[in-house]
Amino acid sequence: MTEKQASRTCLARLPSGQVRELTEKDLHEIDQLRGADDHVVWLDVASPDAKDLALLREEFAVHPLAIEDIEKRRQRPKVDTYAENQMIVAYEVLPAGKGADRHFTLGELHLFAGKGYVVSVRWSASPGIADVEKRFRQNPDSVARTPGALVYTILDAVVDGYFPLLDTLSDKIEGLEDRILRGGQISDTLRSILLLKRAMLDLRRHLSPLRDVANTLLRRDLPLIDDVSAPYFQDLYDHIVRVLDQLDLQRDLLASALEANLSVTSNNLNAVMKRLTAFTVVLMVPTLVAGIYGMNFHFMPELSWPLGYPFALGLMLATMIGAAIFFRARDWF
Amino acid sequence: MTEKQASRTCLARLPSGQVRELTEKDLHEIDQLRGADDHVVWLDVASPDAKDLALLREEFAVHPLAIEDIEKRRQRPKVDTYAENQMIVAYEVLPAGKGADRHFTLGELHLFAGKGYVVSVRWSASPGIADVEKRFRQNPDSVARTPGALVYTILDAVVDGYFPLLDTLSDKIEGLEDRILRGGQISDTLRSILLLKRAMLDLRRHLSPLRDVANTLLRRDLPLIDDVSAPYFQDLYDHIVRVLDQLDLQRDLLASALEANLSVTSNNLNAVMKRLTAFTVVLMVPTLVAGIYGMNFHFMPELSWPLGYPFALGLMLATMIGAAIFFRARDWF
Amino acid sequence: MTEKQASRTCLARLPSGQVRELTEKDLHEIDQLRGADDHVVWLDVASPDAKDLALLREEFAVHPLAIEDIEKRRQRPKVDTYAENQMIVAYEVLPAGKGADRHFTLGELHLFAGKGYVVSVRWSASPGIADVEKRFRQNPDSVARTPGALVYTILDAVVDGYFPLLDTLSDKIEGLEDRILRGGQISDTLRSILLLKRAMLDLRRHLSPLRDVANTLLRRDLPLIDDVSAPYFQDLYDHIVRVLDQLDLQRDLLASALEANLSVTSNNLNAVMKRLTAFTVVLMVPTLVAGIYGMNFHFMPELSWPLGYPFALGLMLATMIGAAIFFRARDWF
Amino acid sequence: MTEKQASRTCLARLPSGQVRELTEKDLHEIDQLRGADDHVVWLDVASPDAKDLALLREEFAVHPLAIEDIEKRRQRPKVDTYAENQMIVAYEVLPAGKGADRHFTLGELHLFAGKGYVVSVRWSASPGIADVEKRFRQNPDSVARTPGALVYTILDAVVDGYFPLLDTLSDKIEGLEDRILRGGQISDTLRSILLLKRAMLDLRRHLSPLRDVANTLLRRDLPLIDDVSAPYFQDLYDHIVRVLDQLDLQRDLLASALEANLSVTSNNLNAVMKRLTAFTVVLMVPTLVAGIYGMNFHFMPELSWPLGYPFALGLMLATMIGAAIFFRARDWF
Amino acid sequence: MTEKQASRTCLARLPSGQVRELTEKDLHEIDQLRGADDHVVWLDVASPDAKDLALLREEFAVHPLAIEDIEKRRQRPKVDTYAENQMIVAYEVLPAGKGADRHFTLGELHLFAGKGYVVSVRWSASPGIADVEKRFRQNPDSVARTPGALVYTILDAVVDGYFPLLDTLSDKIEGLEDRILRGGQISDTLRSILLLKRAMLDLRRHLSPLRDVANTLLRRDLPLIDDVSAPYFQDLYDHIVRVLDQLDLQRDLLASALEANLSVTSNNLNAVMKRLTAFTVVLMVPTLVAGIYGMNFHFMPELSWPLGYPFALGLMLATMIGAAIFFRARDWF
Repeated sequence: MTEKQASRTCLARLPSGQVRELTEKDLHEIDQLRGADDHVVWLDVASPDAKDLALLREEFAVHPLAIEDIEKRRQRPKVDTYAENQMIVAYEVLPAGKGADRHFTLGELHLFAGKGYVVSVRWSASPGIADVEKRFRQNPDSVARTPGALVYTILDAVVDGYFPLLDTLSDKIEGLEDRILRGGQISDTLRSILLLKRAMLDLRRHLSPLRDVANTLLRRDLPLIDDVSAPYFQDLYDHIVRVLDQLDLQRDLLASALEANLSVTSNNLNAVMKRLTAFTVVLMVPTLVAGIYGMNFHFMPELSWPLGYPFALGLMLATMIGAAIFFRARDWF
Repeated sequence: MTEKQASRTCLARLPSGQVRELTEKDLHEIDQLRGADDHVVWLDVASPDAKDLALLREEFAVHPLAIEDIEKRRQRPKVDTYAENQMIVAYEVLPAGKGADRHFTLGELHLFAGKGYVVSVRWSASPGIADVEKRFRQNPDSVARTPGALVYTILDAVVDGYFPLLDTLSDKIEGLEDRILRGGQISDTLRSILLLKRAMLDLRRHLSPLRDVANTLLRRDLPLIDDVSAPYFQDLYDHIVRVLDQLDLQRDLLASALEANLSVTSNNLNAVMKRLTAFTVVLMVPTLVAGIYGMNFHFMPELSWPLGYPFALGLMLATMIGAAIFFRARDWF
Repeated sequence: MTEKQASRTCLARLPSGQVRELTEKDLHEIDQLRGADDHVVWLDVASPDAKDLALLREEFAVHPLAIEDIEKRRQRPKVDTYAENQMIVAYEVLPAGKGADRHFTLGELHLFAGKGYVVSVRWSASPGIADVEKRFRQNPDSVARTPGALVYTILDAVVDGYFPLLDTLSDKIEGLEDRILRGGQISDTLRSILLLKRAMLDLRRHLSPLRDVANTLLRRDLPLIDDVSAPYFQDLYDHIVRVLDQLDLQRDLLASALEANLSVTSNNLNAVMKRLTAFTVVLMVPTLVAGIYGMNFHFMPELSWPLGYPFALGLMLATMIGAAIFFRARDWF
Repeated sequence: MTEKQASRTCLARLPSGQVRELTEKDLHEIDQLRGADDHVVWLDVASPDAKDLALLREEFAVHPLAIEDIEKRRQRPKVDTYAENQMIVAYEVLPAGKGADRHFTLGELHLFAGKGYVVSVRWSASPGIADVEKRFRQNPDSVARTPGALVYTILDAVVDGYFPLLDTLSDKIEGLEDRILRGGQISDTLRSILLLKRAMLDLRRHLSPLRDVANTLLRRDLPLIDDVSAPYFQDLYDHIVRVLDQLDLQRDLLASALEANLSVTSNNLNAVMKRLTAFTVVLMVPTLVAGIYGMNFHFMPELSWPLGYPFALGLMLATMIGAAIFFRARDWF
Repeated sequence: MTEKQASRTCLARLPSGQVRELTEKDLHEIDQLRGADDHVVWLDVASPDAKDLALLREEFAVHPLAIEDIEKRRQRPKVDTYAENQMIVAYEVLPAGKGADRHFTLGELHLFAGKGYVVSVRWSASPGIADVEKRFRQNPDSVARTPGALVYTILDAVVDGYFPLLDTLSDKIEGLEDRILRGGQISDTLRSILLLKRAMLDLRRHLSPLRDVANTLLRRDLPLIDDVSAPYFQDLYDHIVRVLDQLDLQRDLLASALEANLSVTSNNLNAVMKRLTAFTVVLMVPTLVAGIYGMNFHFMPELSWPLGYPFALGLMLATMIGAAIFFRARDWF
């Protein structure tokens, strides 16, 4: 996870439907914009420093516990309702770094939504936020008619980021199944299974509470969500549930793959043992023949046959071939 | 899944109980029919194009999010309640293509039900819809007295399509069990198990939310469902639960089959090892005898016996047979 | 499952507490009896034909969906509430046929209870119904003071039939455990486990919704159940829960048995391998000795010892016995 | 389970706080005592006979279904509420008999609590009842100020009896784990695991509904439980939950032990196979050497070396030791 | 767990915001302080003796059942509501003793919170309590504005102690996974897995009811928690849920590790068997050659070749090398 450089962007949708970008020195104006019914101010903070936190505390009435959460990070997805605003914590899929080991990284995102404003806090470059910002600049009415609509748009961008990841995971599992059934290198396969499992459990741990977040937003009577937004949040909820369903299906498939792996290993062992048995018998039979003609009895007619030696070699060959055919027919070879 | 050619069929049940098919140019009349208490207009759209979507948006007041769902496809079975109508998403069993690998395909189906009309949107030839359409044409009162009744009839046809599939799956599992107990080719069996498991998880993923859909239709006070329809939706719910029960039972059986497979493999290994042991001993004993009479001691009375050689061969044979009987008695051979 | 011959029995408890059997030609009287407060008419139909269905539809106001359920059969246990009456579907344990494979058969039973009457529909000879019928004839007040009481009596007889079956299953599982620990024929044991598992899952599938049925009867305010009957339905519910508890316990034991089976097989393999190792060593050591004295060196003092040959045989025997004792002490033999 | 001899004890706490034991002939007085606000009559019946049941039915208004439960026995823990009284079924831990196989026995206990009286029915010597009886005789106010308090005292004694049993089970599981990790006799260990599992499932089956009993007593507004008793029943509930928690933990540990067992067996097999491989190689190499010098070539210089024989023996020894060191270094020996 | 020496500390936050430490002889003053709206008295008792219990009973109105809980110890985390106060039981992570076997110890903590006072009872040196005490002495307003705030502060310190433990466990699991995949000493690994599992189940058993405690504090209308404290208890709840989530994830990973272990063992067995097969064949082939040239036929041309012996040795070597290459190419060696 590459930490983004600290940055602060503040956009406002004016009642006229226009966009205005607030610069550092305009920040004292936030007061006037914030709280007005027909404005939506969106402050996006990347990697907040002490000054940012002070701004949040003072201008946006962020609760001390929420500030503490920002400072500590690694929060669970949740909705916390404070007197002045709601805090929502969510995680976004980020493209994994160069290290091939991990399949993805998750970027933490804290949203604060109050009357007339939304604040987003994050610690890494966020494709979701960047996309929403672009759409905001182009057509603020399509994404930020109300703070609730802006929150929906951001969360929707976040959740949509999970679908390509799921497809990747699905491909990896099918690849693993194939590798297992073909009987590839076990310890590599196992390492991949354990890594995938860890990744999926990790995903689940961040998505399952996110479903509760969506549910809370959907059901509880928050001022944030008006009647027009309701179907949108229903849609968001449906998407998260779909991701979770898919994830559970994949975990189940992975568990089966692990079991199948054991079966395959066990079966390979069978094959090896059959081959060992076949080899052993095929080699021991002529050795016995050789042993017989190596005995020192005085009266062994074969020994003085002119063709005794070729006869013995032939006997050996015949028994070897016989045994080989016997085992080949049983598919032991 | 063979995508059906785009097509549009629009039937109306007139108050007189007659059927009228609306052609392309009658579509401006929909306005008049739709919303009337005693009409039911059914528009069935296969593989909707932009023009169809416009029609839905304008004539049937379909919500933008629902339009988006149609465009994106791959929705979860759900009921979404909008101001003007309800959207229901369901999946229908379609006969699998030629490829032997998959056991079935699922066809997505979006239904919109509002005052006086039902719209069905789908992307493939649908046996269920075709059947309902036939019954509609023959006797509209039996399937479309109200929009709710039409929705029930369609969903019932969809759910009934799962029962033959379940029987097929059940047969396959019994076949697998037999194959496992008889000890067939492991890796084929495993591949079948994993494919079946994937199919069943997939089915479950589409059916489990469908149960919630039926439950929602049953319990929530939707204008769609009047007192007369209620037992029908109860019946629908019961059918879905029966399918799910059966599916869970089959998954459980499949899991046991996988475990049994491991046991069988492990047991086969035992049998192979016992045979190896038996072969080894049966061949090593005469080899030892041959070794003994191959020693070069000057004073070995047997060597000069006239019948020494036959005696040795007999000894070998006797020990071999003895060992063989010993192991045969223990069922190791 | 031997389908019973179609038959129809109709008994009525008169207000006087007497029993009256209605013959075919009395059936037009049902109208008068049915619906009276102080009568209970019980119509029992085995393997209903079209005429029976017509009777149900016309005289007992059975809903078309319920008629359809009778025609289709294989319904889930459920309570369906129609305007005129309740339908209850339950399954009864029937003695298994001659085929040793299945442990039992389940007989479907549809009950309809309305004001003043109960109808039972079934497809096989039913010990439960037979027993209730006998008690009805002897003392109608003990089983049919109200329709609710008659429904309870029938369901109670049905549920009581599960207890002996559970005991049989329990014995079979203990037998399997013993067989596994003693290490019997694996594939037979596995077949038994899979069959038992299938039987128990099947049972569960029919009993678990029956619990919901009992719960519905217990909690919902049905006219069927008055205050006096309530404790009886509580009792019925308790019995079903007890059966299900027992069944879950047995499934858990069966799962453990399957796992134990794997452990035993794996352990047997250990034993076989140890024996193979022991045999191999015990036979290879004297073979090596024989090999040594079979070498052709010119100067091998032992070869010319008068007692060289017995010495070599003794050495072989000594090393064999030594190896055997070594492995015996480690319990490998 | 040694059935106790039938016996009947009847104690009464008089309003004065004194104890009075009612003899057989005082039983007609029960009528007067029972139902008075300030009396608590406790009738304890062991192994009830027909006369006892008649007494319960007539003097204590026990419902026919409850009488039937007593006659049938093997009830599930439950609270049944009748018009006149509540019936509570619970199970008590009894010291196991001599047979070493079972870890404990459970004694069934039926309690009836009504206005001014408590009846306990059981079928074996009960340490819990005996203890409460002793405390009742010494200080009736401490255990029987109200019927609810007496019920609590009895159930508390019953539940406290589970804790030593849990400790015993915990020790057994730790013992099993040790045995498994040390690699003891598998089939004995397995038998112990299966027995323990059976015992724990059995315990769970009797305790889990007991929790529901405590919960029912705690939450439902029964006349039995006044405000003063409430924290005591809360305490009872907490104890049962603690027992169940512990039991679940132990079941989980047992399941891990079974899995660990499989791993250990599998690993032992590895060790055995490595040893077999090592033995095989160590013995085959000198056998090969002996075979070489047993060849009959006319020109084999070593054969005529004066020290050829010791050289060959040395070579054999050297290769054996070399192979042994090779395998020992890999820890295969 | 080193039992702490008995000790008693009593601090009071005066309305002025100052701290006052009450000595033994000031304890009669508690009466005056306790119950005042603007005071918070905190009594911390370590390893309470009879005198302490008397103090609790008399001065703080602790309920006899709560006293009993203190005497018995080993309570489940719970909230018990008595007339005068609430009792909360929680467990704190303590640094493990020297014994390397256990990963941590849990210290029991009983809290009593009533009007104007909090009592904490514990049996070991508690880092959490010590920390809160320090903060209380420095700035009582920050931790003890109300009894509810003080309870929050103590529980928060307790819960925060679980996070480092989780990190330790996580590291241990990753270490185990590595060890398994590298194929380390199985029985040590298994022992570690079983110990870790036991530790985690133990943790879960103490944390899962603690979540219920936090939930109770959060939802139920306790006088303890005012509107200002509510978000803090929400925060506490979130933290506990995060710990539990993490714990569940780790348990799941551990289960996979155990399964992977089995797969690795099984796979190692494959490798060993392949090697055994390869060794056997590589050694048996030259032995057969030696056997052939050890036969005593009179006419074996090779025997009299001048280079017969080197030829035979070469043949042996060639077959050995051929077999070795054959198996090496298949990666069996």
